[in-house]
Amino acid sequence: MAQESQITPRYLSGDKPALREFLDKFDVFLFDCDGVLWSGDHLFPGTVETLELLRKNGKQVVFVTNNSTKSRADYRKKLEGLGIPSTVEEIFSSSYSASIYISRILQLPENKRKVYVIGETGIEQELQSENVQYIGGTDPAYRRDVTPEDYKKIAAGDESLLDPEVGVVLVGLDFHFNYLKMALAYHYVKRGAVFLATNIDSTLPNSGTLFPGAGSMSAPLIMMLNQEPVALGKPSQAMMDSVEGKFKFDRSRTCMVGDRVNTDIRFGLEGKLGGTLGVLTGVSSKEEFVSGDVRPHAYLDKLSDLLDSE
Amino acid sequence: MAQESQITPRYLSGDKPALREFLDKFDVFLFDCDGVLWSGDHLFPGTVETLELLRKNGKQVVFVTNNSTKSRADYRKKLEGLGIPSTVEEIFSSSYSASIYISRILQLPENKRKVYVIGETGIEQELQSENVQYIGGTDPAYRRDVTPEDYKKIAAGDESLLDPEVGVVLVGLDFHFNYLKMALAYHYVKRGAVFLATNIDSTLPNSGTLFPGAGSMSAPLIMMLNQEPVALGKPSQAMMDSVEGKFKFDRSRTCMVGDRVNTDIRFGLEGKLGGTLGVLTGVSSKEEFVSGDVRPHAYLDKLSDLLDSE
Repeated sequence: MAQESQITPRYLSGDKPALREFLDKFDVFLFDCDGVLWSGDHLFPGTVETLELLRKNGKQVVFVTNNSTKSRADYRKKLEGLGIPSTVEEIFSSSYSASIYISRILQLPENKRKVYVIGETGIEQELQSENVQYIGGTDPAYRRDVTPEDYKKIAAGDESLLDPEVGVVLVGLDFHFNYLKMALAYHYVKRGAVFLATNIDSTLPNSGTLFPGAGSMSAPLIMMLNQEPVALGKPSQAMMDSVEGKFKFDRSRTCMVGDRVNTDIRFGLEGKLGGTLGVLTGVSSKEEFVSGDVRPHAYLDKLSDLLDSE
Repeated sequence: MAQESQITPRYLSGDKPALREFLDKFDVFLFDCDGVLWSGDHLFPGTVETLELLRKNGKQVVFVTNNSTKSRADYRKKLEGLGIPSTVEEIFSSSYSASIYISRILQLPENKRKVYVIGETGIEQELQSENVQYIGGTDPAYRRDVTPEDYKKIAAGDESLLDPEVGVVLVGLDFHFNYLKMALAYHYVKRGAVFLATNIDSTLPNSGTLFPGAGSMSAPLIMMLNQEPVALGKPSQAMMDSVEGKFKFDRSRTCMVGDRVNTDIRFGLEGKLGGTLGVLTGVSSKEEFVSGDVRPHAYLDKLSDLLDSE
């Protein structure tokens, strides 16, 4: 982090020439959503107009979210519900990122291309969209107690429980997490499957407080295996590779916009993007932006200050 | 570990005077079981006679196990099934250890004495034996999917889901682990409950392979809370305090017998017992005993070599 810590972030709010100069440097803007475009269920004023301005000026807009339970189609509906026009193609979620990573970046042997999923329907839909075969997930056959027979079958490598074609274990947020799923995931990885996680956020905000996040499903496996998963969510560069795999953008002409230094800004800096833009409407403070360990290239009081570039 | 690493372990097998001298130093012997008395379902020859010899010479024998799913009564049946005579009073399991720790060592306020249990019936039975009130555990009301109502109730601190008298969260091996249990445990600790674990072994041997252990139930909570539990199993000194709380023994006249340096021998050394005795019928090797970081005071090829002291 030594290099990044020497950035002196430029404050752009209200500075029309600086805003113009900044925007001119980029063709692609990657957006974190909660804390940037909205907070909880509250859309920030000017969000829609700002996105419109960028699109009007020929900028590619991409929404990058660690949410793994929703498919991109579901997420587009969420954006629509908040009044933000978007297309499915503009949305990049950690479950989609994982699917892209599996289908386009991992070089799996012919007979090891199935994915064992711990997670909900959002992951399944995205695997389908990339024609990746999977088992587990929302299949009711896995939503049951472990039995004495299961132990014996798993120990014996019985193919009715351990599919020999599974080459990847993908762990995301699963509201139906249980002992059997944990045991199967462990044994697949021990048998050589790649250990992937959509994201490893330990908690998930809901109803104004926190609940177990996707990372809570990976935690037991990390402990049992003494191995970290390749995590596809921000700030993992596997996600950046996936975004690039799809959009084929020029990193030097791409800017990451976010409210959190440790996920969003770090994601952009480690990805060697041309720019990172912090906004003060979310988690990180001005002090963190200007004197923290991880600093954005520039920052704004709020996203809609970009409208002043006009 | 600097001090312990300077121990030069004495090899006692076949050395009658050394065996006698060693035995004379102790009144109490704490035994690890698997790898010392038996392996899997196979009782080692001479185990019964060795225990008999110790008892005949007035030694107190205590069986110390990290197994949390069995009550002491269940464990006594297991010993009996293997042909080892014992009494419930001689058995010390991590669930019993946890119960003793809660009832005799933790000083809980009057209105915070209930325990929220993640675990099976062994834990419940031991809490009952110490007259500790508990909720959760095997109660079918907790073996269900999380609902949208649950999020709201938990966020609001609704007493139908979050009992205000809970002052301890006790996490052990639970074959019916789920999202709701995880969420409740997290919120109880956030509201001030003490975070305890029967033990934090990440895996559990079964059918010749490994399955998720009690530590796999604590792992998500450790990640979410960024806090380690007080773990009651070996090598935790909370377990030693509990054993002492019950048997009131003189540590200088007590010897821990085990096959694993990192759990059993460490447990005895950190507990400042008068002696630790390694046996070579389990996990650790002679090389580990004589030149590892954690070394026993003495070691034997097998436990029944103690019979040569006669």
